[in-house]
Amino acid sequence: MTQADRWMLPDGIAEILPAGAVQVETLRRRLLDLYHCWGYELVIPPMLEFTESLLVGMGRDLDLSTFKVTDQISGRTLGIRADITPQTARIDAHSFPRAGANRLCYAGQVLHTRPRTAMGSRAPIQIGAELFGVDSLSGDIEVIFLMLESLQVAGIEDIYLDLGHVAIYRSLAEAAGLGDSEREELSALLQNKASADVYSWVSENISDSQVSGWLQALPSLAGGLDCLERAATQLAGAPQALLDALSDLQQVAEALGQRYPAVTLFFDLSEERGYDYETGLVFAAYTPGHGQALANGGRYNGIGAVFGRDRPATGFSSDLVALNTLGTSATPAEGAILAPEVSGPQGAGLWRAIDELRERGEVVIATLSDSAESDLHSRCDRELVFEGDSWVVKPRD
Amino acid sequence: MTQADRWMLPDGIAEILPAGAVQVETLRRRLLDLYHCWGYELVIPPMLEFTESLLVGMGRDLDLSTFKVTDQISGRTLGIRADITPQTARIDAHSFPRAGANRLCYAGQVLHTRPRTAMGSRAPIQIGAELFGVDSLSGDIEVIFLMLESLQVAGIEDIYLDLGHVAIYRSLAEAAGLGDSEREELSALLQNKASADVYSWVSENISDSQVSGWLQALPSLAGGLDCLERAATQLAGAPQALLDALSDLQQVAEALGQRYPAVTLFFDLSEERGYDYETGLVFAAYTPGHGQALANGGRYNGIGAVFGRDRPATGFSSDLVALNTLGTSATPAEGAILAPEVSGPQGAGLWRAIDELRERGEVVIATLSDSAESDLHSRCDRELVFEGDSWVVKPRD
Repeated sequence: MTQADRWMLPDGIAEILPAGAVQVETLRRRLLDLYHCWGYELVIPPMLEFTESLLVGMGRDLDLSTFKVTDQISGRTLGIRADITPQTARIDAHSFPRAGANRLCYAGQVLHTRPRTAMGSRAPIQIGAELFGVDSLSGDIEVIFLMLESLQVAGIEDIYLDLGHVAIYRSLAEAAGLGDSEREELSALLQNKASADVYSWVSENISDSQVSGWLQALPSLAGGLDCLERAATQLAGAPQALLDALSDLQQVAEALGQRYPAVTLFFDLSEERGYDYETGLVFAAYTPGHGQALANGGRYNGIGAVFGRDRPATGFSSDLVALNTLGTSATPAEGAILAPEVSGPQGAGLWRAIDELRERGEVVIATLSDSAESDLHSRCDRELVFEGDSWVVKPRD
Repeated sequence: MTQADRWMLPDGIAEILPAGAVQVETLRRRLLDLYHCWGYELVIPPMLEFTESLLVGMGRDLDLSTFKVTDQISGRTLGIRADITPQTARIDAHSFPRAGANRLCYAGQVLHTRPRTAMGSRAPIQIGAELFGVDSLSGDIEVIFLMLESLQVAGIEDIYLDLGHVAIYRSLAEAAGLGDSEREELSALLQNKASADVYSWVSENISDSQVSGWLQALPSLAGGLDCLERAATQLAGAPQALLDALSDLQQVAEALGQRYPAVTLFFDLSEERGYDYETGLVFAAYTPGHGQALANGGRYNGIGAVFGRDRPATGFSSDLVALNTLGTSATPAEGAILAPEVSGPQGAGLWRAIDELRERGEVVIATLSDSAESDLHSRCDRELVFEGDSWVVKPRD
């Protein structure tokens, strides 16, 4: 690396300069304030933990996404977190247990060994909220609502919400008696919406004709609200867990229709996303022109069991930087006041004048002996001048 | 690791639970707002960079403190940042150059392979401000003032400020013609305040009796303002760089005496601290009962040269978590309002009532079908009830 390119950053790693940083910071505060008002309490989990804490029970995707280093103190392997959700589950299970509902929120850097999508970031700022201890659908609805409120705060208006339920495919795979590898194989075909491949794989591998029919129907069960009606017919007689999942989706759709009628709903009954730890309803929000989900989440009951406390859990998260880029919550560029160098007999009075302006929230930039004036001109639209017997703020030319 | 201890965190790594997290977040906002009002613009540098960018020219300490991983995309070595200051220097040199003064600030996680002090954190949240492009003493004074303002915002009242200047020892080492290893050897003795060892090392290794006398005087040149007077006598005739450094310290002391008369000043003329990149005035703030510096900084001209732009630079930083722990800027615990489950004919009106309360900044916690009431009691001091024909907030028993 030569001197000239030491400023280069790795692929998928970005720095945020002042114009963007002040927007990201403003959005961060607004979102954390929103979560606070909904009763979600802030936690700050650590950037790195033993991999045994970070990754156990979390599936292979998260493991591969996690940078690992050796702890020079214990000699054990540490992981730099790639996801904050499991950390909050650990906190709910152990450090901050509540008997009933436990609402937690967070905002922090995560790192991924590889971007999760093409052109994606390897260093998102993950912001989100998690609800532990509530197994009812009202909990899922609360976090979906809070996710939609987050997008509105970010100024994202055209929202498409994808809804699915992992119990649909899982209950059919179980009814078909599929082993782990078969289940993954078929799941991959379903995720690719490869209807013909699903049809022939099912014909070859599953003998029960009723279960086969249900599985073969899955690829076509995607779309708007009508998709739930078609599913009621095409999946009639399916295992109870599947029928319960359809009923959950129906109720969530009704709640959303009442409170967020402008949000476009999209159902995908073969959906199985995320880090493998979801156990129920899953959801993701999109906006036109941006291929990746803006925010996503779902139910992940039982994740706390590895920390000694099995709890219902649901939540969502988002990348603060992407939200800021796609939203329109622009903060207006504000001016600044140029103050002369503090010295001489008027020094004390000048400091008082500067202090008062700053306490009122004004940006006051002090002139320093050798700072180039030319640059200060561009930021400072006003200046502090001594007139009569006091310091006053005047417009600059 | 058994199930029961998967919640354990590595040594020197802590999580911050709600009571502390809300304080840390509040202090973070107050400090960033303070820096904003002084004209320091927020940047968000990345958590990881090529080690060639992060570490070049930064000295061995920072290298050893930095966790390294392999980039799966480029195959090159990446470092997880252990210090944000060099990142801002890269930004000033390349991504966000200004012709004159460039004021930048930041707040973010850093990681250290080992704690820098006994019982220290390996995952501080570094918060600080850096001033590029100004070589005059007025720049150093501005950042020292801003550091002291930060401590006051954190509610730390009893402040001791250590001041030193790396040119003092360096100019004497140069006058004595010491090589790199000799310079480090003597420096180590000086840092340990081993007066007798310094005396004999100098007698054995340096022939010039005048330079020897100056170096042998250094260990005793530590203390209050009188130390500068003694130095003026004992180091009379020393190299100009040393005399200039003494004059700088004198002027800083005067400026501090005028504006922060309550701060206790302590001078140490053999001081050489930090990550080896300092080039001039160095400073650190302490409070009684806490062995580590609360905040520190100094001048580090020329750091941008490795990125193609040699610039004067000075700044300071602090650990937000430590500041919060030691300060008294407690945020009062506030109550919350319990809302009944949203359903039935009053649903829409209830949502409106909840929305309005949240917009006013109130915390409103919704009852969810199966959340345990017992826990909500402890957080909610009021509740939303339907009376007559509207929703009203009432105290709870």
